[in-house]
Amino acid sequence: MKKAAIIGGTGYGAIELIRLLQLHKEIKVEKIISHSQHGEAIASIYPHLTDFIEEPMHELEIEKLQEEVDIVFFATPAGVAKEILPQFTNPNLQCIDLSGDLRLSSQTEYETWYGKDAATQQLLDKAVYGLSELYAEEIKQANLISNPGCFPTSALLGLAPALEHQIMSPQGISIDGKTGISGAGRTPTAKTHFSETNENVTPYKIGQHQHIPEIEEYLSDKAKTPITVAFTTHLIPMTRGLICTMYGQLAKKATTEEVIEIYQSYYENNPFVRIREAGVFPATKDVYASNFCDIGIHVDERSNQIIIAAAIDNLVKGAAGQAIQNANLMNGWEETMGLHTIPIYP
Amino acid sequence: MKKAAIIGGTGYGAIELIRLLQLHKEIKVEKIISHSQHGEAIASIYPHLTDFIEEPMHELEIEKLQEEVDIVFFATPAGVAKEILPQFTNPNLQCIDLSGDLRLSSQTEYETWYGKDAATQQLLDKAVYGLSELYAEEIKQANLISNPGCFPTSALLGLAPALEHQIMSPQGISIDGKTGISGAGRTPTAKTHFSETNENVTPYKIGQHQHIPEIEEYLSDKAKTPITVAFTTHLIPMTRGLICTMYGQLAKKATTEEVIEIYQSYYENNPFVRIREAGVFPATKDVYASNFCDIGIHVDERSNQIIIAAAIDNLVKGAAGQAIQNANLMNGWEETMGLHTIPIYP
Amino acid sequence: MKKAAIIGGTGYGAIELIRLLQLHKEIKVEKIISHSQHGEAIASIYPHLTDFIEEPMHELEIEKLQEEVDIVFFATPAGVAKEILPQFTNPNLQCIDLSGDLRLSSQTEYETWYGKDAATQQLLDKAVYGLSELYAEEIKQANLISNPGCFPTSALLGLAPALEHQIMSPQGISIDGKTGISGAGRTPTAKTHFSETNENVTPYKIGQHQHIPEIEEYLSDKAKTPITVAFTTHLIPMTRGLICTMYGQLAKKATTEEVIEIYQSYYENNPFVRIREAGVFPATKDVYASNFCDIGIHVDERSNQIIIAAAIDNLVKGAAGQAIQNANLMNGWEETMGLHTIPIYP
Amino acid sequence: MKKAAIIGGTGYGAIELIRLLQLHKEIKVEKIISHSQHGEAIASIYPHLTDFIEEPMHELEIEKLQEEVDIVFFATPAGVAKEILPQFTNPNLQCIDLSGDLRLSSQTEYETWYGKDAATQQLLDKAVYGLSELYAEEIKQANLISNPGCFPTSALLGLAPALEHQIMSPQGISIDGKTGISGAGRTPTAKTHFSETNENVTPYKIGQHQHIPEIEEYLSDKAKTPITVAFTTHLIPMTRGLICTMYGQLAKKATTEEVIEIYQSYYENNPFVRIREAGVFPATKDVYASNFCDIGIHVDERSNQIIIAAAIDNLVKGAAGQAIQNANLMNGWEETMGLHTIPIYP
Repeated sequence: MKKAAIIGGTGYGAIELIRLLQLHKEIKVEKIISHSQHGEAIASIYPHLTDFIEEPMHELEIEKLQEEVDIVFFATPAGVAKEILPQFTNPNLQCIDLSGDLRLSSQTEYETWYGKDAATQQLLDKAVYGLSELYAEEIKQANLISNPGCFPTSALLGLAPALEHQIMSPQGISIDGKTGISGAGRTPTAKTHFSETNENVTPYKIGQHQHIPEIEEYLSDKAKTPITVAFTTHLIPMTRGLICTMYGQLAKKATTEEVIEIYQSYYENNPFVRIREAGVFPATKDVYASNFCDIGIHVDERSNQIIIAAAIDNLVKGAAGQAIQNANLMNGWEETMGLHTIPIYP
Repeated sequence: MKKAAIIGGTGYGAIELIRLLQLHKEIKVEKIISHSQHGEAIASIYPHLTDFIEEPMHELEIEKLQEEVDIVFFATPAGVAKEILPQFTNPNLQCIDLSGDLRLSSQTEYETWYGKDAATQQLLDKAVYGLSELYAEEIKQANLISNPGCFPTSALLGLAPALEHQIMSPQGISIDGKTGISGAGRTPTAKTHFSETNENVTPYKIGQHQHIPEIEEYLSDKAKTPITVAFTTHLIPMTRGLICTMYGQLAKKATTEEVIEIYQSYYENNPFVRIREAGVFPATKDVYASNFCDIGIHVDERSNQIIIAAAIDNLVKGAAGQAIQNANLMNGWEETMGLHTIPIYP
Repeated sequence: MKKAAIIGGTGYGAIELIRLLQLHKEIKVEKIISHSQHGEAIASIYPHLTDFIEEPMHELEIEKLQEEVDIVFFATPAGVAKEILPQFTNPNLQCIDLSGDLRLSSQTEYETWYGKDAATQQLLDKAVYGLSELYAEEIKQANLISNPGCFPTSALLGLAPALEHQIMSPQGISIDGKTGISGAGRTPTAKTHFSETNENVTPYKIGQHQHIPEIEEYLSDKAKTPITVAFTTHLIPMTRGLICTMYGQLAKKATTEEVIEIYQSYYENNPFVRIREAGVFPATKDVYASNFCDIGIHVDERSNQIIIAAAIDNLVKGAAGQAIQNANLMNGWEETMGLHTIPIYP
Repeated sequence: MKKAAIIGGTGYGAIELIRLLQLHKEIKVEKIISHSQHGEAIASIYPHLTDFIEEPMHELEIEKLQEEVDIVFFATPAGVAKEILPQFTNPNLQCIDLSGDLRLSSQTEYETWYGKDAATQQLLDKAVYGLSELYAEEIKQANLISNPGCFPTSALLGLAPALEHQIMSPQGISIDGKTGISGAGRTPTAKTHFSETNENVTPYKIGQHQHIPEIEEYLSDKAKTPITVAFTTHLIPMTRGLICTMYGQLAKKATTEEVIEIYQSYYENNPFVRIREAGVFPATKDVYASNFCDIGIHVDERSNQIIIAAAIDNLVKGAAGQAIQNANLMNGWEETMGLHTIPIYP
């Protein structure tokens, strides 16, 4: 049984890691580390954890930590992981960063979109992009993973097969993202204030979201041609759930059924991707609190477009669940270990 | 003061007409007609109307009705208005149909998309499409109005200026529709069952929605070239509110500010259309319970696309409010009469 | 037409006053005053107000203000009105305070429950408690009104008749309050963070809510005997709406129908109170965005208790609407002026 | 490993049993039985189950079934279990009925409150009331369990210690129930229609709910004195979650801390009951999708009342979870088997 530490103990990413790892047979949460609230019991902040975790949260002690645990999950705000990671000297330590620090391979791109100093190029080069289904081989060899963003997870899983198989034209792709509000984290803001987000759909960061370069980098990689996309995001009055509805020009004649078959074959060894049959699209609730990505496909012959929707739980497949899936791959365990649970419904 | 009848008294369209007309200075609701519940007090079904309407609902008596009232609003299910309308013989009677019966000019298209028998060609030819801002002159001359669908109202107001001004290419347009659940009406179904629609985004009728031909017909008319679109609709866990986020290829170089200026000028005499400044997009709550259509625009230079979002209240500008706006136009009253109220916020 | 100022221009109370006063024939909003954001256009904060208010918000200038306007609404946080009010020297100025500053007649009680310095006794003595239905005569003579809290409005309207008519025993009363989250105002906090309040009922301030002494003071006044109550409050995942469900021992034998008759007679001249018939209870949505208080009554013979529920919109009858109702009473206008609108449904 | 059948395969109770039993080490779901949809794959109705259950649903064949499985869960509508149960002749078959058929020991009471024919007295006498914490010894000996209703589970766990320890007077108890809408099941009705239940609190069945006699029977049993209660229920705009806030007269002087200590001691061997410390009350989300019952207590000295709130997930501890907990007790397995999971948060 391997020991894990979670850094950033009071955010939603950490909470979800704790919940999921309770069911994992090979990972034990050894330490929860919180800069702002070390010394406190986590259940005093999150009463739903009462009776599950007795030990108070710890302060980060880098030297000690890397001897005590085997795996470190960073569920930290932007900019934290890139400062801490270079201080770990234990070469066997497995690190998975759920923040955006290491997702873009280019420092310039990072600084343009994030408005902060980038990690060193060395660190960026070392990190493997952890979209489990698309980069499994690289992940198995890595000990530093940059866990994907929630929107990129949905968009890339939804678009990669169509682009790789040249069903969709690389030009003119539009991605309409819709997310539950937990995606904005736990800090109360006007954008997450119940009275204003309830009974409301709020478009935000139109054309300016930091997930744009991430989607484009890995989509270009898979399509083997540079791709730019129009990407929008909308806050939806629900806590969890994320769906990207995606539109592109058909690059060659194909029926809905033919494209579905290509997708089924593309993902046939990927237990967390489920392709709907023709005429059926996934709802976000179909994957609630689970690690699944459910995909619906429609070839719109009239407009010569292909429409794809990919639904995930933003906190599971879009964050903590995929991080654990990556830990499973890195350690040669079954990919589904601790994660193959039925979504909560209704 | 003109007298109005509302046919279809127990649906949400009728209820909203009653609410809005209470504030109207020139229209009095004379009769509420309900086939299924005539004889009953409407407040026994809708307690929020207690003390407002004492008279019970009536059965439809065509001969009598056309002598008693000046205006008839059809808030009826598909297929009802087209049966009743030909039976009215009073040439001065003003009729506004909120259903889809008369929206498409082609019988064939209607039968393809609605799966029902179409109205007679004569009736279709007589009806004027009541998108108030785009067809004001025709509406002023009409006494039979086909009130637009909720999605087409948003999509057409959002796209018409860009297409008329040839900023957007007529090919490759995608429309991502998101609607509150009141758009599905008052009949309980699995799709409107709280436990399943709450905490959920549900795509539905992908590529098959009956609003597609309506959008295309009037968009083609405005663009003066045939247009097909990819159109999706998503149920959002909120009662009211509708937003279409729309994507198209830039047909010529233009900045966000330039396009906004074109839109402002296009709608400068339209008090219910409000164009947001650059960098700001409307949320559906900005127009809650009001007749406004708020529009945001972003030119996405990187992907060479233009992104437009148009938010309305599906029951007001998307139904009852626009019906009253049309009645105002038909009667030469101020266009905003009874409708120029501040949205409910929060 | 009288001129009004609203102090505290960016909170929900002010926004609702602005919305409601737009429909008022005798009051014009002359000035919106905001300490924190004067100089700004209110529509830049609240885009739903676009095109309605062009003038920027003002800083408070006490001398000037009392000459410029006839009525001042305080939609300010706790502690502000009691500082400003004594500085007004114009004896004809009508002031209505929506905060809790002047609601309790005892300084000691205020300091115990609010944990702040109380207003002067002189100011407290001058203020009339503005529960419109219960203190109409006093309000008509006043020029300083302390507008009631949202829970007390519901609880007092629901309980006063039963206690005055000695149907309910003054001992052992329990009040279970449930409120939409706009009651907590506009400042983002953990308690109002969408991700945590959605899909959740949160009891809060059990036995410690500052509305307890307010309920008890005026209930005791009406019952002519000292009353203490057990009072709880629950945050409900909705924006607007408030309902108190209240329980007390039957003090004498009576049927549901008999009690309903007493209530109907008690409120027969009060257009904003609607009593449901036996077997029917109001839902909060029945009064959405309106000034109504709808009341349901059930005599539970088995347990010898009487159960009463009173539903209001916390921002209208529980705040801004009642403030305007009081202004109507103070000025001898029709009590319903600007307020007699149909609730938003659905 | 024991084999289980679930009868009533398409309701929420069955779906939740399937989800929870997937994690159970000693129970395997062998057969899902649906009268209305046998032959169909359950994933065609509930896509979240895709890839989990391949076998189609079965028709009920009583003879065969009782040989094939060891445990039968009835997740059936009222009136079904009482017809089927007498037809089982295998004395070793363990049956757990989640419906209300067997909850009341008196046929007369059942017929009064349910308005249907009661089960035979023999069957009622045989059934053990399965409130796991309060009747564990009886459950361990039983092979027919009547699983409690959702409100009674919350109310009884919340009130039993106070009444057994004579802290609360048996007269004048009020129970204010609030439930998420999944409690109303999967059949779409006006009461569960999103547009009307959203942004709404709806009191229903005031003083007439069929859970009243159930609460009273077992509360009287525990208190050893006849108890009647005033009980109300409110639909809350959320899918899951239930909380009863309960009020009673203090029977003897006690502080909040003293009562909490009594509760902690009462439930010290019950892993699913968590007592909050003084000043803290549970929210329904603290137990989301879990089998916990979290309890908060406040002694309100001013009004001489004691206030208790008990939060559960209506579909887990209020239905499927408790059914499994009972199966664990009946089979001598660990009480928490398959159920000791962290609630979903946020």
